[in-house]
Amino acid sequence: MFESAELGHKIDKATFDKQAPRLRADLLDAQYDMGALKKYAVIILVNGVNGAGKGETVNLLNAWMDPRHIQTHAFPPPTDEERERPFMWRFWRALPPKGKIGILFGNWYTDPIVNRARKITKAADLDQSIEEINRFEKMLADEGTLILKVWMHLSKAAQKKRLTALEKNKKTRWRVTKADWEHFAMYDKFRKVSERVLRHTSTGFAPWIVVEGADENYRSLTVAGILLDALRKRQKIEQTRGWKARSAAAPLPQALDSRDLINSLDMSLALSKKRFEKDLEKYQGRLNLLTRDPKFRERSLIVVFEGSDAAGKGGSIRRITGALDARQYQIIPVAAPTEEERAQPYLWRFWRQVPRIGRITIFDRSWYGRVLVERVEGFCQEADWMRAYAEINDFEDQLVRSGAIVVKFWLTITAEEQLKRFKEREKTRFKRFKITEEDWRNRKKWDEYEHAVCDMIDRSSTEIAPWTLVEANDKYHARIKVLKTLCDRLEDALK
Amino acid sequence: MFESAELGHKIDKATFDKQAPRLRADLLDAQYDMGALKKYAVIILVNGVNGAGKGETVNLLNAWMDPRHIQTHAFPPPTDEERERPFMWRFWRALPPKGKIGILFGNWYTDPIVNRARKITKAADLDQSIEEINRFEKMLADEGTLILKVWMHLSKAAQKKRLTALEKNKKTRWRVTKADWEHFAMYDKFRKVSERVLRHTSTGFAPWIVVEGADENYRSLTVAGILLDALRKRQKIEQTRGWKARSAAAPLPQALDSRDLINSLDMSLALSKKRFEKDLEKYQGRLNLLTRDPKFRERSLIVVFEGSDAAGKGGSIRRITGALDARQYQIIPVAAPTEEERAQPYLWRFWRQVPRIGRITIFDRSWYGRVLVERVEGFCQEADWMRAYAEINDFEDQLVRSGAIVVKFWLTITAEEQLKRFKEREKTRFKRFKITEEDWRNRKKWDEYEHAVCDMIDRSSTEIAPWTLVEANDKYHARIKVLKTLCDRLEDALK
Repeated sequence: MFESAELGHKIDKATFDKQAPRLRADLLDAQYDMGALKKYAVIILVNGVNGAGKGETVNLLNAWMDPRHIQTHAFPPPTDEERERPFMWRFWRALPPKGKIGILFGNWYTDPIVNRARKITKAADLDQSIEEINRFEKMLADEGTLILKVWMHLSKAAQKKRLTALEKNKKTRWRVTKADWEHFAMYDKFRKVSERVLRHTSTGFAPWIVVEGADENYRSLTVAGILLDALRKRQKIEQTRGWKARSAAAPLPQALDSRDLINSLDMSLALSKKRFEKDLEKYQGRLNLLTRDPKFRERSLIVVFEGSDAAGKGGSIRRITGALDARQYQIIPVAAPTEEERAQPYLWRFWRQVPRIGRITIFDRSWYGRVLVERVEGFCQEADWMRAYAEINDFEDQLVRSGAIVVKFWLTITAEEQLKRFKEREKTRFKRFKITEEDWRNRKKWDEYEHAVCDMIDRSSTEIAPWTLVEANDKYHARIKVLKTLCDRLEDALK
Repeated sequence: MFESAELGHKIDKATFDKQAPRLRADLLDAQYDMGALKKYAVIILVNGVNGAGKGETVNLLNAWMDPRHIQTHAFPPPTDEERERPFMWRFWRALPPKGKIGILFGNWYTDPIVNRARKITKAADLDQSIEEINRFEKMLADEGTLILKVWMHLSKAAQKKRLTALEKNKKTRWRVTKADWEHFAMYDKFRKVSERVLRHTSTGFAPWIVVEGADENYRSLTVAGILLDALRKRQKIEQTRGWKARSAAAPLPQALDSRDLINSLDMSLALSKKRFEKDLEKYQGRLNLLTRDPKFRERSLIVVFEGSDAAGKGGSIRRITGALDARQYQIIPVAAPTEEERAQPYLWRFWRQVPRIGRITIFDRSWYGRVLVERVEGFCQEADWMRAYAEINDFEDQLVRSGAIVVKFWLTITAEEQLKRFKEREKTRFKRFKITEEDWRNRKKWDEYEHAVCDMIDRSSTEIAPWTLVEANDKYHARIKVLKTLCDRLEDALK
């Protein structure tokens, strides 16, 4: 992996002085073309051996391009807001929007490599990290992000020479820390772990580029040249056929008979008003106690509501919040994404709402819109919603591993019941807002939605974040089932 | 202040049961009307005596309205990200966008009152807080926010009764903490301080409403009724004549002769290339050392660039960043606000970019757009830009008090020099992006801009955050003046 980057690559001053101005002008041009188009973001990961010129390379890119449209992020120790959320949250926060370049160092590769070299983690942990990173980067690439991964390399001898030289110079002495020499003592270990990581994360959509860091002229021209090529290539694609996610595999099969998860539900389930009131008090009391359990202070709760229009999501949510302290929860009603959200990968708008520990977030509609409304209405391509199942599972997996309890409800009503409710809503004064033209349109696609819902449940009802199907023709039954399920899940998690 | 809220107000169950459903329906209607209009945000502050039903009131509002469009914020101890920024930063983060209701408790009143009652601060500190709060709330009101401030009150006897009752009941015992009794012991002190605060912050644009909290029915109907009235009144204004900031005082006087700050500058100032290169190295070296000074880790640096088009802001910025580590700074190019930013008070988009300690943020154009382009182009009303001077001074004052060093540059070129640069830019390949139709249009308003700039400098060049006027016809001179000023200011601040 590193052999070609130990050959002692060099570029003499005359050559550099000849090539640099031209390269610089071209790079700036390419940056502006990309910024004007605003169709994709560029992420540059800069990793590698200490002293191989990582910082210098980043400063060079900022100097050669317009730094006003570059967002550089280092990742010092996480803040407490970051520690109280999944590991990847801080990186999601730092993703550049379309049209901008984000340079990240000390990125998602740092911890896995350092922790493995220091034997804090096992080989199996590293392999898991590698897989997760690959899936994450694939998602970014599929969302249109151009990913460049640069590994600045130095041979052991060259690193020693470099650190010594920096230390000898009065002006640069401050740059060599004790940790640098500690890392140098572990050179071979780091090299072995890094090689493994690079080999397994050099993917078609985000390959590593190893650059020998000993000679400044060489590494500057190399990195700038790579970036220029990548920008030009992508720009050309955008301007000709347009960039597209790869086409997906064969479409999902539909059951040969008409039986599915939804129409197998017993829609006659109902509760009397009296029973409802008794149960409501009981479960709201239980829920209130559970959210005040000292153990909950180390967890968070994420509740997802999906369902047909008029299935009673709002009513169910109010029965939950009725049991909670308003200081503890927030409700996120999911509608069309904002401009800032549209400039980011699909899941970004949900990542930004991930609660801290001790808190509750209730999503009224959610990331599942991708495989429901966006699929059925054709707002995204088949390839996009097909890959969304795996992306969503990864997202929820990260939530759960960070301590979140994820509870998902699908509220079902029959087409007849929906029609009844639509008509009622049109009559009732303070519910009139709730019924729109769109609702009537959606109704016409009932079968397509049902098909999408069944696929969604099949593909995203996981052990760690299962779906609960709620028969909601009877509101009393639905609300109690929601509350009881929530209590059971919480009780189970806080055991 | 509190007398009428100690009369033992009560509403019997029958009356409550009769009035509540109607009030609830009306309130929900009003919330939806406001949400559909999306023209203003509503902020409800809930403060008062412990045990007076603050939490219950907030839960009630969430239960009676649609909680999906209410954002409730309590403010537990600040996170480290909050502690490393000005005191008000956490509240700016929590402001609701237009069309939403934000309920804040534990808000900007809490610390000033508690700290004064506990004698951590002096009377003069409290007075300063009061003034700052009034200016802040006036700004919110001027920006169109509807502010409701509810103070839940209990007499001393009633508070004792309430706390004792809560403690006796097994189900509510957890709600009474040691701190509650400590506060009760200080009832008289708290009352005195609160009264002072309420008296001085009961303004025309944001009056306090004191509500007796002893009887649940009374306080529920009262608070809900107040909110309903306020929403209806505002909605009516929006639908008839439209809501407008008050008209400003007399327009700013213009000097009777044609001499002003800008045309008094010596535009012939210039440096030789040789001298420039020598100075550049010197000041970049100094700047680099200063930003690595251990004392800088407790400060932050905010650099503001304003100037005519083509005055060389970008070039000056690059000479600064050339001396810095890319990990330490970010550049914010200020263009049109995003949709999320437009739904917030004017300064919100700048507050969100305030750096943590140890970091540097460079603004390429800034909040001064309000009194420059927005004034000259008529993007806001005279009343808006007139009040902006004071708002900006308050903003910068808060930055400085939190440890930020604020350095502001106005880069000036003559009209002839600008024309020359425009023409050059149109010719030069990799600068072509920089010249737009708008630039040519702005040139026609040269005098109006100059007038606005002089007003801006007169009104916002403060001791804590002075403007530096930079004669920028000669780029070498300009860049060195910028670097030298920055070094001097930093050196002075880190002494």
